[in-house]
Amino acid sequence: MLQDKNKILIESIKRLLRRNAIPHLRKIVNKTHAADLSDVFPYLTVRQQHKLFELIDDVEKKGILFSELDEATFLAFVEQMNVDDIVPVFEAMPSDDVADLLGQLRDEKSDAILKKMKREGQEEVENLLKYGDDTAGGIMVPDFIALREDATAGEAIKMFQKDYKDVEMPFYLYVVDEYGKLVGVSSLRQLVVVSPDTPLKAFMSTDVFSVRTDTDQEEVAKLVARYDILAVPVVDDTNTLMGIITVDDVIDIIKEEATEDILKMAGVGTEFIESKSILKNTRIRMPWLLASCFGGLAATFIIGEFEESLKQVSALAAFIPVIMGMGGNIGTQSSTIVVRGISTGFLDVREIWSVVFKELSIGLLLGLVYGTLIGVVAQFRFSGPKLALAVGSAVICSMSVAALVGSLVPMVFARMNVDPAVATGPFVTTSIDIIAVFFYFRIASILLGL
Amino acid sequence: MLQDKNKILIESIKRLLRRNAIPHLRKIVNKTHAADLSDVFPYLTVRQQHKLFELIDDVEKKGILFSELDEATFLAFVEQMNVDDIVPVFEAMPSDDVADLLGQLRDEKSDAILKKMKREGQEEVENLLKYGDDTAGGIMVPDFIALREDATAGEAIKMFQKDYKDVEMPFYLYVVDEYGKLVGVSSLRQLVVVSPDTPLKAFMSTDVFSVRTDTDQEEVAKLVARYDILAVPVVDDTNTLMGIITVDDVIDIIKEEATEDILKMAGVGTEFIESKSILKNTRIRMPWLLASCFGGLAATFIIGEFEESLKQVSALAAFIPVIMGMGGNIGTQSSTIVVRGISTGFLDVREIWSVVFKELSIGLLLGLVYGTLIGVVAQFRFSGPKLALAVGSAVICSMSVAALVGSLVPMVFARMNVDPAVATGPFVTTSIDIIAVFFYFRIASILLGL
Repeated sequence: MLQDKNKILIESIKRLLRRNAIPHLRKIVNKTHAADLSDVFPYLTVRQQHKLFELIDDVEKKGILFSELDEATFLAFVEQMNVDDIVPVFEAMPSDDVADLLGQLRDEKSDAILKKMKREGQEEVENLLKYGDDTAGGIMVPDFIALREDATAGEAIKMFQKDYKDVEMPFYLYVVDEYGKLVGVSSLRQLVVVSPDTPLKAFMSTDVFSVRTDTDQEEVAKLVARYDILAVPVVDDTNTLMGIITVDDVIDIIKEEATEDILKMAGVGTEFIESKSILKNTRIRMPWLLASCFGGLAATFIIGEFEESLKQVSALAAFIPVIMGMGGNIGTQSSTIVVRGISTGFLDVREIWSVVFKELSIGLLLGLVYGTLIGVVAQFRFSGPKLALAVGSAVICSMSVAALVGSLVPMVFARMNVDPAVATGPFVTTSIDIIAVFFYFRIASILLGL
Repeated sequence: MLQDKNKILIESIKRLLRRNAIPHLRKIVNKTHAADLSDVFPYLTVRQQHKLFELIDDVEKKGILFSELDEATFLAFVEQMNVDDIVPVFEAMPSDDVADLLGQLRDEKSDAILKKMKREGQEEVENLLKYGDDTAGGIMVPDFIALREDATAGEAIKMFQKDYKDVEMPFYLYVVDEYGKLVGVSSLRQLVVVSPDTPLKAFMSTDVFSVRTDTDQEEVAKLVARYDILAVPVVDDTNTLMGIITVDDVIDIIKEEATEDILKMAGVGTEFIESKSILKNTRIRMPWLLASCFGGLAATFIIGEFEESLKQVSALAAFIPVIMGMGGNIGTQSSTIVVRGISTGFLDVREIWSVVFKELSIGLLLGLVYGTLIGVVAQFRFSGPKLALAVGSAVICSMSVAALVGSLVPMVFARMNVDPAVATGPFVTTSIDIIAVFFYFRIASILLGL
């Protein structure tokens, strides 16, 4: 739906640019949401982009467009812009977004921009740049509404009308003591409902969630999702209010973290790389295949050890794929359940043994089912009861071990505070491959007396 | 962090329950957020749960607790409750949550509850039950704030103080015409900022996003995430305002959809099943392994065809794992990138050929790198240049084909409006296994003249 709409938009804008229909373009550009314009930009030349950009009347909209562009498009666009033209746009943006974009620019350029920004904005951005990218400090905005506890509801509403017109999302009104320390929270709605001379401390809630500047962004997202709040205040280690994180940023974090988990499990890095070039893509993906390559080569050596058995019963080779495949698949099931369970909070890292025991039991049961099935096929195909027994037992064995390894490895990694998603994918599949092949040939050579 | 906090909470509540320290328990229960209480419940007996529940003073909090409990705990708890005790709790809940919970209960029980609810709540819930679970209609709440366009800001504020105290999240004020059709939107904040006698139509925004009752929830989530809005109005096909969807529900959708994608790709159903019993778990996971079983058996028959070649060069068998493993891993990379790219909107389903071509090129490049490496190892291990050449070429071949299949299949499924995540996992890995094995033996038998 969204995509179709934007396809039409792209076509119309391109056509109007060709005809140089400025008044028409101006109308479209100012009526279209910046998020949609950001989809059009990658389809235009940098010159065309600048033509469009200059037609945007609202400088805040220019700012939103900046933060919505993908990194490559933004860099190419801004490269052709004077620092003096960039500064007013940055000054109209929330400082957390400015800090993000400055991080993408070359150091000289970002320093030059920062230097020309108004003192206030400059300080805000510099403060944010101090914190780690993935911490609450790095994503908070310093534009919050904070009042002292003896202010009245009426005074608070007046402040709104005067001083706080620029605050990004004014749902909560934070209450601080004389040292700026967070003591309570109220909402714009409560202000409207109580009588104007009621002091804040009479109706504020003192039970206020907050996070520290160094709290991990994933932790912040969990808190906001869990308690259905719209913004969470960020305090330093003396409980002084430093900024807030709003729910729209939390949504971005949740999407980003889910994508990261998915990509890591598949062994394709931690960022979405499809927009990068073929060569860059290849370079990023190459190391993730190394584990699988070494694992496969290890299996080669293991099988090499059983060359004599293979010479006698060449049918043994035919079952390598199914034994590896069944182990690999159930291992992926187990590790996916555990990795996602940990990251959504469904699974408790401390219950390691109950989780692993459960997965092992499931692996054993599924192994019995599929081991029997595959053993029966082996009997029909090669009519060797011993071979069939060896293949069936190897399937049971590889599936149970795979479920064990697939659940144990991410649990252990998580307990050691290593991201289970990164560690799991290639590591688990590769070790399962090796173990499965080894057990298969060991079992077969014993049962077949080779 | 969250988990540690709740571990302490669980321990304290259990201890206090053993000591029957009612006043202490009452204090804790009323101070603790319902989301945290919901974590304690599964660790208690149903009797203990009821004891705690009765100590909760605020009926709204009881409602939040209901919706936060996991399905099994909720059902066991509510089973022991009279309909007359359930009704007041449901009446204090947003109707979308009531509809969700009623869907979990046995029909007789949910009918009995619905019948005893006040007319208004009953109608709201029945209206919601009409819509599909995953549509905007199924997740909207009918408690929105709507005023006519000639009402003034002052009148609107008065309405807030009187009529709209129960509205879940009052950020937006929707403006409707005389037929109830949506014509504009304003915010509580704007009401406070303009002079009280200004009519809504003078300052409302007419550029209002809305979705239809039958819009898919994933589409709604994309819209909210994209435009950073806090709530989206839901209209029927005559543009009459029916309800709103708030950002807290959108967060749940985003998390749910990401989990679904991850589980589907790993072939473990569409729901998080770790809380279910071992047997149920086994039953759900069994069919997802079927594809891999049949694929593996197909590979058995293919290899069986080359039994003669294997008898002559038994070393051939040793390279089956590495060729399958490399193909499988790069195939997972490609399909993961494509599936996640489609669901986050990074990839456009219509650009099927450019995406597939890119993946194929990457597969070829990575195939050249790893094919050479593995070929060299084969030469050292078995010192047969022809075998080394066959193994190397098979790796190149299987990796390119895997990247092709891994990107093409999800793109094609998405274009046919079949969920690419479901279709991709087992289907892609299995077909890659078969293709890789086939090419390997074909190439080897040609090169080695078998």
